[in-house]
Amino acid sequence: MADVSTTAPATLRGVVPPLLTPLTPTGELDVPSFERLIAHHLDAGVDGLFVLGSSGEVAFFEDEMRDQVLREAVRIVAGRVPILAGVIDTQTRRVLAHVRRALEIGVDGFVATAPFYAITGPEEIEAHFRAINEAAGLPLFAYDIPVCVHLKLGADLLVRLGAEGIIDGVKDSSGDDVSFRRLVSLNKLAGSPLTLLTGHEMVVDGSYLAGADGAVPGLGNVDPAGYVRMDRAAQAGDWSTVQKEQDRLAALFEIVFQPVGKVGPAAGVGAFKTALWLMGILDTNTMSAPMTALEGENVDRIRTVLTALGVDVVR
Amino acid sequence: MADVSTTAPATLRGVVPPLLTPLTPTGELDVPSFERLIAHHLDAGVDGLFVLGSSGEVAFFEDEMRDQVLREAVRIVAGRVPILAGVIDTQTRRVLAHVRRALEIGVDGFVATAPFYAITGPEEIEAHFRAINEAAGLPLFAYDIPVCVHLKLGADLLVRLGAEGIIDGVKDSSGDDVSFRRLVSLNKLAGSPLTLLTGHEMVVDGSYLAGADGAVPGLGNVDPAGYVRMDRAAQAGDWSTVQKEQDRLAALFEIVFQPVGKVGPAAGVGAFKTALWLMGILDTNTMSAPMTALEGENVDRIRTVLTALGVDVVR
Amino acid sequence: MADVSTTAPATLRGVVPPLLTPLTPTGELDVPSFERLIAHHLDAGVDGLFVLGSSGEVAFFEDEMRDQVLREAVRIVAGRVPILAGVIDTQTRRVLAHVRRALEIGVDGFVATAPFYAITGPEEIEAHFRAINEAAGLPLFAYDIPVCVHLKLGADLLVRLGAEGIIDGVKDSSGDDVSFRRLVSLNKLAGSPLTLLTGHEMVVDGSYLAGADGAVPGLGNVDPAGYVRMDRAAQAGDWSTVQKEQDRLAALFEIVFQPVGKVGPAAGVGAFKTALWLMGILDTNTMSAPMTALEGENVDRIRTVLTALGVDVVR
Amino acid sequence: MADVSTTAPATLRGVVPPLLTPLTPTGELDVPSFERLIAHHLDAGVDGLFVLGSSGEVAFFEDEMRDQVLREAVRIVAGRVPILAGVIDTQTRRVLAHVRRALEIGVDGFVATAPFYAITGPEEIEAHFRAINEAAGLPLFAYDIPVCVHLKLGADLLVRLGAEGIIDGVKDSSGDDVSFRRLVSLNKLAGSPLTLLTGHEMVVDGSYLAGADGAVPGLGNVDPAGYVRMDRAAQAGDWSTVQKEQDRLAALFEIVFQPVGKVGPAAGVGAFKTALWLMGILDTNTMSAPMTALEGENVDRIRTVLTALGVDVVR
Repeated sequence: MADVSTTAPATLRGVVPPLLTPLTPTGELDVPSFERLIAHHLDAGVDGLFVLGSSGEVAFFEDEMRDQVLREAVRIVAGRVPILAGVIDTQTRRVLAHVRRALEIGVDGFVATAPFYAITGPEEIEAHFRAINEAAGLPLFAYDIPVCVHLKLGADLLVRLGAEGIIDGVKDSSGDDVSFRRLVSLNKLAGSPLTLLTGHEMVVDGSYLAGADGAVPGLGNVDPAGYVRMDRAAQAGDWSTVQKEQDRLAALFEIVFQPVGKVGPAAGVGAFKTALWLMGILDTNTMSAPMTALEGENVDRIRTVLTALGVDVVR
Repeated sequence: MADVSTTAPATLRGVVPPLLTPLTPTGELDVPSFERLIAHHLDAGVDGLFVLGSSGEVAFFEDEMRDQVLREAVRIVAGRVPILAGVIDTQTRRVLAHVRRALEIGVDGFVATAPFYAITGPEEIEAHFRAINEAAGLPLFAYDIPVCVHLKLGADLLVRLGAEGIIDGVKDSSGDDVSFRRLVSLNKLAGSPLTLLTGHEMVVDGSYLAGADGAVPGLGNVDPAGYVRMDRAAQAGDWSTVQKEQDRLAALFEIVFQPVGKVGPAAGVGAFKTALWLMGILDTNTMSAPMTALEGENVDRIRTVLTALGVDVVR
Repeated sequence: MADVSTTAPATLRGVVPPLLTPLTPTGELDVPSFERLIAHHLDAGVDGLFVLGSSGEVAFFEDEMRDQVLREAVRIVAGRVPILAGVIDTQTRRVLAHVRRALEIGVDGFVATAPFYAITGPEEIEAHFRAINEAAGLPLFAYDIPVCVHLKLGADLLVRLGAEGIIDGVKDSSGDDVSFRRLVSLNKLAGSPLTLLTGHEMVVDGSYLAGADGAVPGLGNVDPAGYVRMDRAAQAGDWSTVQKEQDRLAALFEIVFQPVGKVGPAAGVGAFKTALWLMGILDTNTMSAPMTALEGENVDRIRTVLTALGVDVVR
Repeated sequence: MADVSTTAPATLRGVVPPLLTPLTPTGELDVPSFERLIAHHLDAGVDGLFVLGSSGEVAFFEDEMRDQVLREAVRIVAGRVPILAGVIDTQTRRVLAHVRRALEIGVDGFVATAPFYAITGPEEIEAHFRAINEAAGLPLFAYDIPVCVHLKLGADLLVRLGAEGIIDGVKDSSGDDVSFRRLVSLNKLAGSPLTLLTGHEMVVDGSYLAGADGAVPGLGNVDPAGYVRMDRAAQAGDWSTVQKEQDRLAALFEIVFQPVGKVGPAAGVGAFKTALWLMGILDTNTMSAPMTALEGENVDRIRTVLTALGVDVVR
């Protein structure tokens, strides 16, 4: 990957959490909470931030809101780590519009999914990433997330696009670590053109062992320091520390299984926001409409998991 | 359903084709072709037009393009039939932005899908339609299209929302006519609060027999007159004419199975555009990026189907 | 299709219900109930019986039980209508073993699905039907049931196998009436080599209008006479009677939506068995393990649907 | 888990390959090849053998063939390692028949999937495993293989059944290592009632790091010694050796991606059989009907992968 900015390392790798978007009770960006959340990440030593990803509720925001989130993130981070901007939308033309606006705001790279809503085949998927790369002129990560776009990006396609310089990396949120392992193998054979990041907070340990370059863990919003420690241990080949950190983070991840009667981000992102609200970092656990915030026993169960693990809660 | 406009019938029913969006070779709206296409529909006697649906390539257009398509449609139709506007986007907030802009342009009703990309449950789906209804203040059709949004709207939910006045109708593109038949039954039991339109051009005959109020046939762009004749025959209980028209339209529908190496709208909408281009109604068969237009043998095979059925082609 | 037996019509068409398998409280074949159920069908004038289908709980029975069910059916029917035997199993070799045993027992035709459990491609599916046809030497229906085997039989393949004489008909339980309509069209173009039966009790009316040759309705166990009347009306082109019968049967089909906490055949076949038990035709509503019989409020709700429609219940 | 036999360790763990079933050109069990294949495994030091699994083509075999395979395996292994028998079939009653016959033949434990073909819910799945356990009286592994049975066994259910003593272990072939990681966590919290084996040959390294007790690798038929070395290294905490072995095995696994025009076991098991045939251990690479053996360039490409990795080939 090319140098992503004057402040960025020559090669982005390591822990790049998908930044949550804190909201006010009426659903607008909560800037003071956003500042505290970003400080929480930077204090932990994360290697970059992925703004406007699935965990950032990107699919719920119209253009103005997306721009505000990016602009504030850029202002607050102030070049201390590179910022990857999610340019996630149904089809090419809409994605290119997001790319243009993000370039004006000033980001360090992009993350884009395959097209969705309208069914597309291999020819269209490839044309989609080529068009984004041409418009972006900055590092581009392909975001493999079948649970949202309902197709899987094949390892062969990804490595071929990498070898051609169309994409620079992959954020793998496919839940299919067999395929991720093959992606690592093929990438290595091709001279490692791609930076490979796993999006699965539960199996970062195995991903490092398999050869991943880093992680984009949603749970990293709650405990970025744990993921940074795991990353540094993996770099040092200290696998017993890797294992210990992952075991603890796996126990912490149980917060996402606590909400009853919720599915998708209303449960998962809802649990992350609720934990950060209980920890005093966010002022609310508000979710974007049509989702509603966790409350009552759903909050209590998350508090119980946190306190059992020794996390300080203030509410 | 309430009166949809001064020019609209008290109850929209019958043939409401999902209008294609003709494009210039560079992908912009081709206004002269759009005018000819709308005339083709109005001359055939269609009962309404659904602008910016899946067949209209809505998922490929950014806001400015959506607005231009709607504005031109409204101008060209000039109140002769009601216009339903597709307000199709990932989640509530984005859909509401489309509703606001369409209200300014001046349409007669709305069509909205369930939320997509981010997984949502029954609670969120219901909140989504309630929010749209509140903002719209005009007839609202729920668009059931699992192939795009990857969830099925249940008949019980739809009829309940209908009975409450949250939605006024359903466009069923689920491909699940067993479920459509049940929707008809439950709607009748509830006093028929919903107008039920099928989106499947191949089974409009059976849908009428089951009790559908009309159709939204993509193939109706190519042969609107055939669908209008079938509708009038069904209204008159003349089932042998219904059968004859549907048989002919089913043979015509074979055009969508001719393209080799294409999937989704690149094949289906591509075939409709190619047929209309061969018939001289559109000036190109251009598709939105990342799709490409049909060419070569894919065009030849469509021409063969058309001429075998006696359709006049000019190219 | 060839003459299926000395007692069979030259071409099987019309109403061929998938016969339920009545069980004793300990899960064995309940012969007296089976006799009453078959009499219920024959009295209604059905055109054939499909024994050991999905509704017959075939997947739950080991070979001995399958043989007993077939043998008793053959004995009770005594040649009055043709019997199609389901030879449903995971892969070719197992299906062929069922074919051999059924041939010894003496049936009039076979019904087989695509292979399942192990994933197979087009080459294997075709080889599978060819092998069955070669061993069977009797009319063979391809059973298209994606909900059980998780793949859809394409209309092109089916018509090609029909034209070659490998299969004689299709039982379509795909729930995809768009595809069924195309199957009808392609079959007609090929000279109608296939007898096309729909398995969807809710849309038999539309299937007849589209050109189906008959139906294999699970609900036909409860009300075979209704389906026979609809079939005769469709043959006579009396579509208002077709519509009236289907409307009534659609209301009756609501029994399958009454069971709470049940899915699949435990709900659907369970509802059919419960209705027949309430009507005094079956002595129990026992289901095969691991399913359990409907009881309590689930039975009450079915009784309510039946009595609202004027069906005589004795329990 | 209870002592599985006089020859078995108190707790089965480690490498338990799913034994392939060598076939003669006419599709019968090839006993001499079977003897060589089992010797290949035992020489490598495997900890057990899983006979009649998906890789063993169980779904393709009728009862007599299943019995023969089991009987020969028991005879050849002669108590040197425990034998787990796959009792894989559509529903409970059929599975129980396989259990009874396998008990007579004499095996050391069982492996069973969730019910398939007919849709079943949580109540039935649980009743299914309870019935098998009651009949088996030997260690029972739940086989989680959604790609074949089209449902996923939840970690909560599995751990609960383990805590009750209904099942003794899990063979996870779900491809969902996020869920596997959670299964490991919940099992540990419950006092580790379950032995957890991964079925994914590509991610055994990460599975060990996560806490797996062993592996059931299909590729282990080709290179059992590699998996045994990886297992012993993992036990010793020697993660750099684990990584080295997995990297080499991942390169070897590329054989399954070489066949063109094949899917499912025809590609995967076909590649394993072809490799062992090229290595001189099997006399043919015959597959069960309706599958056909790999040939021509598909064989050449597999030979190329093998020789590139230094594997001796004799054909």
